[in-house]
Amino acid sequence: MSLALGIDLGGTNTKLAVIDGEYHVRAQRSIPTCAETGPGAVIVVLAETVPALLDECKADRGSVVGVGLATPGPLNLREGRIIHAANLPGWRDVPIRDTLAKALSLPVVLENDGNAAAFGEYVAGGGVGCEHLVALTLGTGVGAGVIIDGRILHGHYDNAAELGHMIVAVDGLPCPCGQRGCLERYASADAIVRRAERNAETQKRRNTEIRTASDVAEAACKGDVVCTQVWDEACKYLAVACVNIQHAFNPQRILLAGGLSLAGEQLLDPVRRHLRAQAWKLHSDLPEIALAKLGSDAGVIGAAALAFDLSTRRR
Amino acid sequence: MSLALGIDLGGTNTKLAVIDGEYHVRAQRSIPTCAETGPGAVIVVLAETVPALLDECKADRGSVVGVGLATPGPLNLREGRIIHAANLPGWRDVPIRDTLAKALSLPVVLENDGNAAAFGEYVAGGGVGCEHLVALTLGTGVGAGVIIDGRILHGHYDNAAELGHMIVAVDGLPCPCGQRGCLERYASADAIVRRAERNAETQKRRNTEIRTASDVAEAACKGDVVCTQVWDEACKYLAVACVNIQHAFNPQRILLAGGLSLAGEQLLDPVRRHLRAQAWKLHSDLPEIALAKLGSDAGVIGAAALAFDLSTRRR
Repeated sequence: MSLALGIDLGGTNTKLAVIDGEYHVRAQRSIPTCAETGPGAVIVVLAETVPALLDECKADRGSVVGVGLATPGPLNLREGRIIHAANLPGWRDVPIRDTLAKALSLPVVLENDGNAAAFGEYVAGGGVGCEHLVALTLGTGVGAGVIIDGRILHGHYDNAAELGHMIVAVDGLPCPCGQRGCLERYASADAIVRRAERNAETQKRRNTEIRTASDVAEAACKGDVVCTQVWDEACKYLAVACVNIQHAFNPQRILLAGGLSLAGEQLLDPVRRHLRAQAWKLHSDLPEIALAKLGSDAGVIGAAALAFDLSTRRR
Repeated sequence: MSLALGIDLGGTNTKLAVIDGEYHVRAQRSIPTCAETGPGAVIVVLAETVPALLDECKADRGSVVGVGLATPGPLNLREGRIIHAANLPGWRDVPIRDTLAKALSLPVVLENDGNAAAFGEYVAGGGVGCEHLVALTLGTGVGAGVIIDGRILHGHYDNAAELGHMIVAVDGLPCPCGQRGCLERYASADAIVRRAERNAETQKRRNTEIRTASDVAEAACKGDVVCTQVWDEACKYLAVACVNIQHAFNPQRILLAGGLSLAGEQLLDPVRRHLRAQAWKLHSDLPEIALAKLGSDAGVIGAAALAFDLSTRRR
């Protein structure tokens, strides 16, 4: 049976998984990235981890058709380089695709992590059957990926689908990216915690031990005024983003993933309600809003699926 | 020489043109649409006009490979139907593609007018060489078309690229579409005139005979405070839209077309300035902002180009 290797290289941890042709995870491992040791050292560790992972699922190296590598962007896909990555300090202009391919003696396909996660959901998760799909990962920031006619959208600069930086509030909250009013300032898991803390301070309310977006969700459930307001505002801005995604890409479905999506119906219900209230009435082309299904495996599964794709194109 | 026929069916007038393989207009004609007479009568008039047009450029009917028909949407492209069109009153669920094909005994390809105009600019206008291109037509409303890897983006519901209805101001001005704060409420030629009139009234200034967007541009040039403010605000919202287009599609170029684009540098300069001020500093993927080149011919040229495309695919 053909297998592919998926690697999702993150700022803190890196996930590796062996995936079969039906997109099932046969073996996986999560290791600290240790980005500060530099790309060379990180690639050595990855290369050392792969044989153990293949042993674990009794897989023959010869059955691995290739490797999909998901990393933070921006990337130069043609050249297989990381241009720079905010959460991989010091990694600038890294020819990671070819270096890893050499280290593993396997073909490697490089992809932006948000895109890989969206592709994973498309082939095996909450977007199966949707040829036009958008996935939003609501975590530290807001990552995203766009599938058009079953293919990942890259754009001219390989940097499409940076939907976390769509401006949803003109002259709004400043973002480290240099813009103001980015979606991720309002609707990422981190932003919700920060806003709940700050608004509680401003209103001189006691801080009810808010550490995660789940804490905000829980406090909102119990009737905490500040948390209810922050949560609802996040859902409203998410709905505005969904309206803009609707008119831009006209997808069948928008998936919500990441930390915030753990709230399930408590996220879906208000986003859907705000979307119905804000979206146009001219045409019945409202996208479905649904939860992603693969959790933190979306990236490795999507990356491995891209390796299968690459091997098919090469045959 | 192979020729194609382009038809751009608008609410008031319909343009027909014979286009050669190098996208030059060999003959053209503009006739009143008379939409109120119904689709059947309109198609009869179109069919009667075509022979005269071919005569005009001494073209043989046999050299016409097909017809491209651009109409307002929303459309069902698979079935070749107009679902409904705001400015073609009473036209609902019209199987216009097949009816026209039968009347002309020629293959017909149907396309949304904003998409056809963008495709025209892509093959023969301000977007030649840009495989990733967005065109915004700033007229009565804001029409748009998106080219990805040299192909028109349609989306799941055939209704992608309705960028005039991206929300740029949450809870902003109401739009007849049912939303609030749509781009076209701020940055269409009509919106600018309306806002200049209303703001002048509010501020009890004398109305300086503002009838067109060009009047607003001219008054702004002469230092009129209200017109300067409305014009600059339109440019700012256009820049916000361009930021969101940048992060969604990552195009190489965004073209500005339609009535407002007649202002040339007076439009380009402030839009570019606001874009630089508002866009992120993380990556040098800022799209070029440029003027469209084909004027009101973009639709017929794009439509005809799609007819050439269709004939190539059929061979």
